[in-house]
Amino acid sequence: MSLGEFDLISRYFKQTNELANDNGVEIGIGDDCAILDLPDGYQLAVTTDSLVAGVHFFEDVCPYRLGYKSLAVNLSDLAAMGAEPKWVSLAITLPRVDEPWLSEFSRGFFDLARKHNVTLIGGDTTKGPLSITVSAKGIVPRNKALLRSGAQVGDLICVSGTLGDGALGLASKFDTLALSDSAVFVDALELTEPRNQLGKQLINYASSCIDISDGLIQDLHHIVEASQCSAQIDVENMPLSDAMLGEIKMHHVTEQQALQYALAGGDDYELLFTISAQHYSELCLHNLSDKVTVIGKINANNDIKVNLTKAGEIINLQLAGWDHFKKNK
Amino acid sequence: MSLGEFDLISRYFKQTNELANDNGVEIGIGDDCAILDLPDGYQLAVTTDSLVAGVHFFEDVCPYRLGYKSLAVNLSDLAAMGAEPKWVSLAITLPRVDEPWLSEFSRGFFDLARKHNVTLIGGDTTKGPLSITVSAKGIVPRNKALLRSGAQVGDLICVSGTLGDGALGLASKFDTLALSDSAVFVDALELTEPRNQLGKQLINYASSCIDISDGLIQDLHHIVEASQCSAQIDVENMPLSDAMLGEIKMHHVTEQQALQYALAGGDDYELLFTISAQHYSELCLHNLSDKVTVIGKINANNDIKVNLTKAGEIINLQLAGWDHFKKNK
Repeated sequence: MSLGEFDLISRYFKQTNELANDNGVEIGIGDDCAILDLPDGYQLAVTTDSLVAGVHFFEDVCPYRLGYKSLAVNLSDLAAMGAEPKWVSLAITLPRVDEPWLSEFSRGFFDLARKHNVTLIGGDTTKGPLSITVSAKGIVPRNKALLRSGAQVGDLICVSGTLGDGALGLASKFDTLALSDSAVFVDALELTEPRNQLGKQLINYASSCIDISDGLIQDLHHIVEASQCSAQIDVENMPLSDAMLGEIKMHHVTEQQALQYALAGGDDYELLFTISAQHYSELCLHNLSDKVTVIGKINANNDIKVNLTKAGEIINLQLAGWDHFKKNK
Repeated sequence: MSLGEFDLISRYFKQTNELANDNGVEIGIGDDCAILDLPDGYQLAVTTDSLVAGVHFFEDVCPYRLGYKSLAVNLSDLAAMGAEPKWVSLAITLPRVDEPWLSEFSRGFFDLARKHNVTLIGGDTTKGPLSITVSAKGIVPRNKALLRSGAQVGDLICVSGTLGDGALGLASKFDTLALSDSAVFVDALELTEPRNQLGKQLINYASSCIDISDGLIQDLHHIVEASQCSAQIDVENMPLSDAMLGEIKMHHVTEQQALQYALAGGDDYELLFTISAQHYSELCLHNLSDKVTVIGKINANNDIKVNLTKAGEIINLQLAGWDHFKKNK
């Protein structure tokens, strides 16, 4: 691509970036670096995620949704630390300059950025195979970040929102499933809502936290391994959406399949956190931004890191992906 | 790639990262975000650059040098702001897990990181076409960052080091050039030394600064446009390396070619800055980390943004790439 074409891209993202200069941004796009102000008493939280065509999305994905999701997955990592999103860098590699595509991509990206008051502070546009790397930065009160390593024996295990819809949405893109309304599940997959407001509310209450990107059980493993404990999850308490319950009722999805999506599906981007019973009762006095469900509790360290229970009894659910996961971890 | 293979990559970069926990890093690799401490009185400087195979480098490039350079170009952006490098995120997309390649890539990356006391604080590894996105973060005393926009009429224009070697190195990779020693020029291209020490020394002295990635004239344009002034450059003052002067003496390179490389070649990663005569004389009292040469001065705003002079007279040098650049900017 010629300089002129790249100039156009930079100008495009610069114009759309109306929040710059109002968010601790002393210097935004247009110099060698961005220069940013952190408020006193805060630490910087930084996360980076890449989305690559053919791996994380299909080349013909709706660009609005790709722009939206490439930011959403990064904001979700900030949410998992209790951090308030502030700034984002975007490195985008494109096979060619395609103005309608860029227009839609940036519309999706900035629709979510505006909602969370996030300012684009720089990045890079390059010619090459389509991929997006987003680095999001947020602020968190000093020494208050929600880590994976703080879970204590006896803590409750909680999850925000509902689980499994995104995984069913992904399945419906690969297979022809007889669903009453597949769009709601595809929306859950592609227009995921990062839980940054809830993440901030969990500060001073939750003992550990992670966002669910790879599936509840896999991400719970990260918590119990970092915290040197084990967990039990009551499958009867799994929060399923009304849409998922509707599909079960219509016999489009079995209960076993719904559990598979909820426990091992991934792409939920809900917050999974642990909290003492005392703190949980205090937390519930707040007007929480999202629904929170208690799904289990933390036990002492054990060779079996995560047990599933039903009516108080340990069950052995055959989940696809489960053996593979255990083998690799 | 399986989870296991990606685990290996993460572990690999984690092990090599011996500086973590000693650089304001409260949480490094291994949680949802890194958590970083900025010292009081400092601002955050952030830059992001992507290197894509087939665009910025050949797929068969020496991985040590690719690892080194992918960090070097980002540190150079921090140098141009006068920022001290602290932290870096690395997003790397690979067609397959190739341990010898990764070992060499990370050796080059960390050799430079150690030299500048930079800590790897996170990133992402993905399967896909080879590309590298680095986001480097540094600190700069509040309101002291060196911007492009501060040049004043009458300021001297200075450049660090020597110019043109990297461009000749690049040319020697495309064409068979009769050079006495092409390795020194290829080294200048691939093992570029970012000028972070000098950048810090320029704080409180330089009125504007940029690093030369696209060629002296093109990057000088960024300064004079941001500062609303014009510039004149005396081509007789161009700092050329002993190696380049040797090739001219041997008639392997003409003086005109050497000027072309020095003025419009790019890939120098030297600092280009403006400074008042008073500040320049004060700066020269310091033990500067790199050679600095005065190459011109800043004039009042004008339609012609950059004039080249020889013996005080404006000359019209026919530089390849020059018209293309003017047209696009």
